[in-house]
Amino acid sequence: MTKPLQTAVVGVTGYAGAELARLLLHHPRLRNHPPVFAGRVDQKDLAHGGVPLTEIHPQLGDNAGAANLKLEPFSWELLSTLGVDVLFLATPHEQSREWVPEALKRGIRVIDLSGAWRLTEPAHRAVYAFADEGSDLAEATQAQAVYGMPELHRKQIASAKLVANPGCYATSVILPLKPLVAAGLIDLGRGIVADAKSGVSGAGKVPTARTHFMYAADNLSAYGVFTHRHTGEILEETGISGCQIVFAPHLLPIPRGILSTIYVHFAEPETHEHVAHVYRKFFADSPMVRLYDKTLPQIQYSVRTNYADIGFQLDASGKRAVIVSCLDNLLKGAAGQAVQNLNVMQGWPESEGLA
Amino acid sequence: MTKPLQTAVVGVTGYAGAELARLLLHHPRLRNHPPVFAGRVDQKDLAHGGVPLTEIHPQLGDNAGAANLKLEPFSWELLSTLGVDVLFLATPHEQSREWVPEALKRGIRVIDLSGAWRLTEPAHRAVYAFADEGSDLAEATQAQAVYGMPELHRKQIASAKLVANPGCYATSVILPLKPLVAAGLIDLGRGIVADAKSGVSGAGKVPTARTHFMYAADNLSAYGVFTHRHTGEILEETGISGCQIVFAPHLLPIPRGILSTIYVHFAEPETHEHVAHVYRKFFADSPMVRLYDKTLPQIQYSVRTNYADIGFQLDASGKRAVIVSCLDNLLKGAAGQAVQNLNVMQGWPESEGLA
Amino acid sequence: MTKPLQTAVVGVTGYAGAELARLLLHHPRLRNHPPVFAGRVDQKDLAHGGVPLTEIHPQLGDNAGAANLKLEPFSWELLSTLGVDVLFLATPHEQSREWVPEALKRGIRVIDLSGAWRLTEPAHRAVYAFADEGSDLAEATQAQAVYGMPELHRKQIASAKLVANPGCYATSVILPLKPLVAAGLIDLGRGIVADAKSGVSGAGKVPTARTHFMYAADNLSAYGVFTHRHTGEILEETGISGCQIVFAPHLLPIPRGILSTIYVHFAEPETHEHVAHVYRKFFADSPMVRLYDKTLPQIQYSVRTNYADIGFQLDASGKRAVIVSCLDNLLKGAAGQAVQNLNVMQGWPESEGLA
Amino acid sequence: MTKPLQTAVVGVTGYAGAELARLLLHHPRLRNHPPVFAGRVDQKDLAHGGVPLTEIHPQLGDNAGAANLKLEPFSWELLSTLGVDVLFLATPHEQSREWVPEALKRGIRVIDLSGAWRLTEPAHRAVYAFADEGSDLAEATQAQAVYGMPELHRKQIASAKLVANPGCYATSVILPLKPLVAAGLIDLGRGIVADAKSGVSGAGKVPTARTHFMYAADNLSAYGVFTHRHTGEILEETGISGCQIVFAPHLLPIPRGILSTIYVHFAEPETHEHVAHVYRKFFADSPMVRLYDKTLPQIQYSVRTNYADIGFQLDASGKRAVIVSCLDNLLKGAAGQAVQNLNVMQGWPESEGLA
Repeated sequence: MTKPLQTAVVGVTGYAGAELARLLLHHPRLRNHPPVFAGRVDQKDLAHGGVPLTEIHPQLGDNAGAANLKLEPFSWELLSTLGVDVLFLATPHEQSREWVPEALKRGIRVIDLSGAWRLTEPAHRAVYAFADEGSDLAEATQAQAVYGMPELHRKQIASAKLVANPGCYATSVILPLKPLVAAGLIDLGRGIVADAKSGVSGAGKVPTARTHFMYAADNLSAYGVFTHRHTGEILEETGISGCQIVFAPHLLPIPRGILSTIYVHFAEPETHEHVAHVYRKFFADSPMVRLYDKTLPQIQYSVRTNYADIGFQLDASGKRAVIVSCLDNLLKGAAGQAVQNLNVMQGWPESEGLA
Repeated sequence: MTKPLQTAVVGVTGYAGAELARLLLHHPRLRNHPPVFAGRVDQKDLAHGGVPLTEIHPQLGDNAGAANLKLEPFSWELLSTLGVDVLFLATPHEQSREWVPEALKRGIRVIDLSGAWRLTEPAHRAVYAFADEGSDLAEATQAQAVYGMPELHRKQIASAKLVANPGCYATSVILPLKPLVAAGLIDLGRGIVADAKSGVSGAGKVPTARTHFMYAADNLSAYGVFTHRHTGEILEETGISGCQIVFAPHLLPIPRGILSTIYVHFAEPETHEHVAHVYRKFFADSPMVRLYDKTLPQIQYSVRTNYADIGFQLDASGKRAVIVSCLDNLLKGAAGQAVQNLNVMQGWPESEGLA
Repeated sequence: MTKPLQTAVVGVTGYAGAELARLLLHHPRLRNHPPVFAGRVDQKDLAHGGVPLTEIHPQLGDNAGAANLKLEPFSWELLSTLGVDVLFLATPHEQSREWVPEALKRGIRVIDLSGAWRLTEPAHRAVYAFADEGSDLAEATQAQAVYGMPELHRKQIASAKLVANPGCYATSVILPLKPLVAAGLIDLGRGIVADAKSGVSGAGKVPTARTHFMYAADNLSAYGVFTHRHTGEILEETGISGCQIVFAPHLLPIPRGILSTIYVHFAEPETHEHVAHVYRKFFADSPMVRLYDKTLPQIQYSVRTNYADIGFQLDASGKRAVIVSCLDNLLKGAAGQAVQNLNVMQGWPESEGLA
Repeated sequence: MTKPLQTAVVGVTGYAGAELARLLLHHPRLRNHPPVFAGRVDQKDLAHGGVPLTEIHPQLGDNAGAANLKLEPFSWELLSTLGVDVLFLATPHEQSREWVPEALKRGIRVIDLSGAWRLTEPAHRAVYAFADEGSDLAEATQAQAVYGMPELHRKQIASAKLVANPGCYATSVILPLKPLVAAGLIDLGRGIVADAKSGVSGAGKVPTARTHFMYAADNLSAYGVFTHRHTGEILEETGISGCQIVFAPHLLPIPRGILSTIYVHFAEPETHEHVAHVYRKFFADSPMVRLYDKTLPQIQYSVRTNYADIGFQLDASGKRAVIVSCLDNLLKGAAGQAVQNLNVMQGWPESEGLA
């Protein structure tokens, strides 16, 4: 009889880590072996050691097992003792750069939610200024990484040792663009615009001037125009070059959700039916993508689900399209996609524990 | 001694009309002769006859004169008796189509906040499907209309009999685009994208499924993509053709404010300094436009002011720019701009009563 | 082999009905026999006949069965054909007054979410002005009704033919008060204050002036002070008289959730420990109540759960307490509690399908 | 010819300080002598020295003088040089404890917005734990302080050297209670409940876990029950004893505004007319209080005004009342009331610069 799968999550003090804890706690295949929750190693998180999870995230509490879980300070010894098979890292990228090589050395598969291992091109990684950039260990580790978007890399994820879970904005732009680019529909030379809008949870749990209620409420602001870190992922996964797309994120006055409005020119006039066909074919085996045929998706429809919703509209000439994609930045944009990757890695149905 | 100016507002039950009432009540040049507030002629508004303004808009109440104003059912006789010189119409466009010719016949100058008289091209007007489209009277009236954007048509407004006050979205797109188009900076052939986001007051005061709190809150949705009625204004005022620009509005979960993100390609590489210079020059005499030099404006900065805020960012190549404009849809996007037009028509300082 | 339970829901066009549909669709004991969703009989709902459920509530859509469900116009014949055992009515109270007697006659058990059958005292019912008030049929029907709060009436609900599902506000006030009243702790003569605050979904899906985003957003307003319809339920279930309690509801600028702040005087000085003990004892077998020992619950903690959260604080003298209760008005305050009642009626675990 | 009045504000980096700056900049009596804006002396504010005010508060910017104002590090020498007559302190209370004695020594009148000098009773001050509590200088300074609520202490404010500007919550509770207590209407023995709800700006500009958008949005939480610092002000100004009132504040998911719901028992049955008469009489000369006769005020009505709005409802017996008061916590609850006090001190109309 096989040993049941043992997972562990690092970084449950943050929003994505907390969602991950919640999802794994209720995952039907993990029911009898609750995962371990360890804090980050920085001082602040050590202070959380032994603290009940529900003290940090009262929303997670229920009268079943969840209420009894306590945060433990992280140690490799504890992971060995527990026999952890799959380690989720919901940690800052520098943390992930340090820990992933060690985990792989110990034979633990990793699903990393940070930006540490998503990018192949050094030029795209420059924005992170990794301390270990270019080292042999970093190169060897990167070589093992698979970009964790099941809709694009299902096969490689299944056997991956290291899954680099995509960025939330990147997911909301790559999923609607990839099928059209792959089918050769888009006139890249005329340029693509991806105007993205995200809720405040995307900015993290640390209180800052930007996450202050008075800054975000009743407001909308653009930021990171031309420079956002998720741009590299978009380029690498779609094959579009940097001069062919503009990506501009905005901060929405809502807790969760991303809506990206994407503007493309087609090489030839297209019909609504043909574009819909291209999407349906591409996502035929992807249960976590919902295609909207006649209407456009709205943020509300996908929030608190793991779905990526995609809809589009053509102009009268059939030469231009506006595509709208929506997802929950903490689920399909982070923790949900991570669990989806776990499902793929284990050969389980892709939407298991994500309904 | 000259008779003091007498204004009147029709349509104060709506949001723009209420803002107009508030602005005129506190306008320093109109202090001793409070304007008249008349309801629309439809049944619903007749019911408001004699009702104190503060019963409909408690926010307007103060312990001075405002509290005593009462809505009157509209009549031309009342206007004559009162000697109205300038009539503001914050009415549905069909209403404005009917009333404006009559007002002009009676020698009353009109500032119309509806879309009734903004468009010169019949093709652009088609979206409104005016009942009197093409009639002699309509043509003659349209010929007298001046598009009420002081930054573009200050001189014509000064002597206009009929000022067609611009649409809120149109204002937020025309102001940032016009200077760059006029200076020949933009490569129109590569296409412009105007991704606009507006607060809920833009959808009007009538309760509908879309203005329900549960629809708008915690949500974002695109609508009117390729088809929004303000598109015609943008084309006519900037000279851009319909195949050169995509305009896509979105409904924001906030009460007031518009942010438009505009994506352009330049014909030649530009510097930040030169683009800033072009803007500064164009708006040198425009006190109600604020240019942001180093940062981008946010919706919060302009809400409850009559300013149109404009900022921009260039990519490293200098070939592409993202321009962000913000304004309050009820002020610079409606009532504020209407008062600005009144100031221009009267030869008063343009920002009088709008600080 | 027994026939699997067949349920049906009437009124899924509203918020509570939609939540009910969602819960029943995913209820583990109902998995193989999806419930039927019928519209209300009024004209508006007939128009929804045959319409996919996800067209009205896109949030309900998933790539499994839910997407295929269609609204059917209601008919007793259809119910018979389907062999419906339990009928959920998420309908206006007048509708429930008409339909419940018919359903009971046909041997169908009913869980009614309206206020139609909650009140025993004619004086308390007066606020509803039922058309059939005092008729023999109405009296006989009322005599069969059990107030559907499992924490108070578990046994009677188990065998009830008609369960009158409690009001959302009433639930948030009765649950925290009942244990203290039952234990004789409260000095009723000094008066109780229940200051309740609810999200906008409590006001229903029909667009009105009060549910307009511009009315509710950035606002707070009191309403129904001394007169709210849920007052009768509070009095009947706690045994407190009308002159001993003031209930004042407020409209919060949030989609979901109720927080009630309740102020009581104790007959004798109490300790925190003793009050906590009284609560723990009362709710020992109630899995859907969460007691907060050291902190106070917040609306966020219970939203999107079926929990009623209760916490309290004593003053230094031990003579006064402030009790805070929170719940989701659409779940524990409506659809969730209805499913909890179904579980009790079927002898299933009380929190089945509600985790 | 008299020297024009010179004011100065310390603490403009915070919300109340910023509002104060805005109000003084546009105050008609101060037009030709703009006030000085100095930062606090702590490290963080020194860093703001020389920084344009609009860089910290872009909302304050206009194309007139405001755009040119720069923050200066505070110094007494600078105040002397400028000949400052009235000093506004929008500083933390410990700061005000230090600076006010020095300012008074230098003959500068002070309007202090902190809690430093509001309380006469040492027992009430205990909650602040002032470092200089009980010192001779502190006692002497406190002796000169007048509680800055013009509706209660107009005469003393006119000649005061030190005005202790009231707390926002305190204002929202004292104004509705004082007239009824003074008229002897309330049965204090039965206890008063003041359930208060405030927007997030009341929690200050420093980013904390509680001011994070994710904490406040879509939420409501009670805090400081039985212990809030404003309780002492309420007791001292109304003459109610601590065991006769419970004050419980809540954090609302809105930027600005306070609504307090106050529950009282009357000694004798009262009529609506009589209670209204008592209020009208008490506030006959108070232009900044608005009484609602038939309806209850809502937060929206008073936000961005300096009004305190008061309405009430009696039960059928006339023995109990629910009183609702609303105000803007940054205006009537802070900066607006401070300017109102300035007006009283200068003998100007009380609402000057506050319309």
